[in-house]
Amino acid sequence: MHKSQLAGFIIDCQTDDIRAAVEFWGQALGYQIKADTDPGDSRYVELDTGADDLVIEVQKVDHQSRVHLDIESDDIEAEVLRLEKLGARRIGTVKTWCVMEAPTGQRFCVVRPQRAAFADRANSWDNE
Amino acid sequence: MHKSQLAGFIIDCQTDDIRAAVEFWGQALGYQIKADTDPGDSRYVELDTGADDLVIEVQKVDHQSRVHLDIESDDIEAEVLRLEKLGARRIGTVKTWCVMEAPTGQRFCVVRPQRAAFADRANSWDNE
Repeated sequence: MHKSQLAGFIIDCQTDDIRAAVEFWGQALGYQIKADTDPGDSRYVELDTGADDLVIEVQKVDHQSRVHLDIESDDIEAEVLRLEKLGARRIGTVKTWCVMEAPTGQRFCVVRPQRAAFADRANSWDNE
Repeated sequence: MHKSQLAGFIIDCQTDDIRAAVEFWGQALGYQIKADTDPGDSRYVELDTGADDLVIEVQKVDHQSRVHLDIESDDIEAEVLRLEKLGARRIGTVKTWCVMEAPTGQRFCVVRPQRAAFADRANSWDNE
């Protein structure tokens, strides 16, 4: 048995100016930047969507700009196997997460639990 | 004065089989398909994320698969002007919504209010 759920969405920006990217997206969406992140200092800057909402981050990337989603899980390998059975393809591992590609072509990541309510709210799946 | 907020995310799938796309994404994310939508009948199928959460839809598209976000507003023209001042670019109008491109390159849409709590929760902006 393992658990997973949608963790949130990452706004991937091909830019040399992550601060400008974060300012645009924060103002466009009406979110503050999380106080514990420094836009000048990181490839990842989280927007403050409130404790119960999905994680939304702006990320500096080298590839073309896009939006991707993250699935959070307490057992990344079991979750990747579950998603492979549904038709997704494993692309590779980056740090602690696994990059996958959906049968419909979008890249997404399987990551460790991100949200405080994960244990209570995530879906439970039988491992096969 | 007008209001806007993030409405949700649309999973754009370049596919001839929207039903298979919806089944993959529903199972991958652990969401049911909304009872009032018929995957065989529509280009848009909404996943059931609960009343308070962001709208997440699977959409059949002709362009390359991607994920895009929607901003909902009670005054689309005023919101488009606000976003243009932030650096976004107007691409065109489709039915009732406006397609825009962020300064970081992602396409997104400005749409009419989608969520029940819009009036209470959306951000208010002064029109200039």
